[in-house]
Amino acid sequence: MLKYQQIAAELETYIEEKALQQGDKLPILETLMAQFEVSKSTITKSLDLLEKKGVVFQVRGSGIFVRRHKRKGYISLLSNQGFKSDLEDYQLTSKVIELDVRKPTIEVADNLNIGLGDDIYYVARVRYINGQTLCYEESYYNKALITYLNKEIVSESIFHYIRDGLGLKVGFSDMFLHVDQLNEEEANYLHLRPGAPKLYVETIFHLTNGQPFDFSKVTYNYEQSQFFLQANSSM
Amino acid sequence: MLKYQQIAAELETYIEEKALQQGDKLPILETLMAQFEVSKSTITKSLDLLEKKGVVFQVRGSGIFVRRHKRKGYISLLSNQGFKSDLEDYQLTSKVIELDVRKPTIEVADNLNIGLGDDIYYVARVRYINGQTLCYEESYYNKALITYLNKEIVSESIFHYIRDGLGLKVGFSDMFLHVDQLNEEEANYLHLRPGAPKLYVETIFHLTNGQPFDFSKVTYNYEQSQFFLQANSSM
Repeated sequence: MLKYQQIAAELETYIEEKALQQGDKLPILETLMAQFEVSKSTITKSLDLLEKKGVVFQVRGSGIFVRRHKRKGYISLLSNQGFKSDLEDYQLTSKVIELDVRKPTIEVADNLNIGLGDDIYYVARVRYINGQTLCYEESYYNKALITYLNKEIVSESIFHYIRDGLGLKVGFSDMFLHVDQLNEEEANYLHLRPGAPKLYVETIFHLTNGQPFDFSKVTYNYEQSQFFLQANSSM
Repeated sequence: MLKYQQIAAELETYIEEKALQQGDKLPILETLMAQFEVSKSTITKSLDLLEKKGVVFQVRGSGIFVRRHKRKGYISLLSNQGFKSDLEDYQLTSKVIELDVRKPTIEVADNLNIGLGDDIYYVARVRYINGQTLCYEESYYNKALITYLNKEIVSESIFHYIRDGLGLKVGFSDMFLHVDQLNEEEANYLHLRPGAPKLYVETIFHLTNGQPFDFSKVTYNYEQSQFFLQANSSM
């Protein structure tokens, strides 16, 4: 972790521990510089990172303010950290339905930018929140990048393993959302009736070098899932 | 528009006009500096802005690459520009159901950070895409900030008016998503059957100074709406 990232993390912890509210003002730049004993450019980078993450907002000529919404139990749709970080107070578990190495379909090859002869890991899981079904998830990993998976790994956080076990850097992702009705198979996994509403999300996850490593299809139980999104002014 | 924003806009147009694909490499920094006749710090700010907007990604030591997804017709959930910019090839229209000044409910007052005695503009609209219903939208504007609306304004892009007509700066927003089933009133407006699936989105829009000015509730027609989201690595 670089210095400015470390300071950003400390500031974030400070905001949480003090239970600061949206609109609360942070100390001025000079105070933060003195407190962390760093240069202006370092503290500016920390604050830019926190603004990008939606933790603060900066008002030109006025200061730095806390950004925090009031609603609990929402899953951040943009988090590349997996669910675990959003839902710390909840118990999350997974049941592995299938794990194997296979060849991709045309759709999967296209989304992962690989050939039809290349190998992929296929992982199907049902994920639970406090014992209730949260989602049914099918993921396709490019085996040239995600070289090894086993049942123990995929029953836990796969992204944690990818970062810490394989040492890969997770970069940007593209998400496609649809609302539709559950088919029989999905309803079965989620313990809902066929025809019940669903949120269906396809995501292409990339490494920081731009290579797609995971194409995933997730069907959410509408009764258990509420989502949160932050947009910044520059977008 | 500042110099770096102008260059960012030009680069974005260039990428679109040349129909560059995801992974295509942009010229190196020195070439861009010479081409636009600006300093390194200006071109760096332009590229940072484009990275934030999901138009490029930067790989340390390797270069700047185009970021573009392949799917057409998706609405960007994070755009604060309104739908119009995402769906340029589509015909978007609105029917105004109601427009009046009233007092807020507790829920609305809480989300807009105002008192129960303050005035709000209430706007209900049905929005259409190529003649099909896209969504039913109820919006609550803080009248102290959005001082004037009329039927002509709300039948067009309200955000366009807020920026260009009132000269206000739209900042960050917080969105809350649920999937559920249409009730009778919503089904009626969207020409769907009650019980059909819906995406329901509540958004709190803020000015750049952090004041919430619009709390909106949007119910989407699931048959007409597919959404797109980009996540950056820092998130």
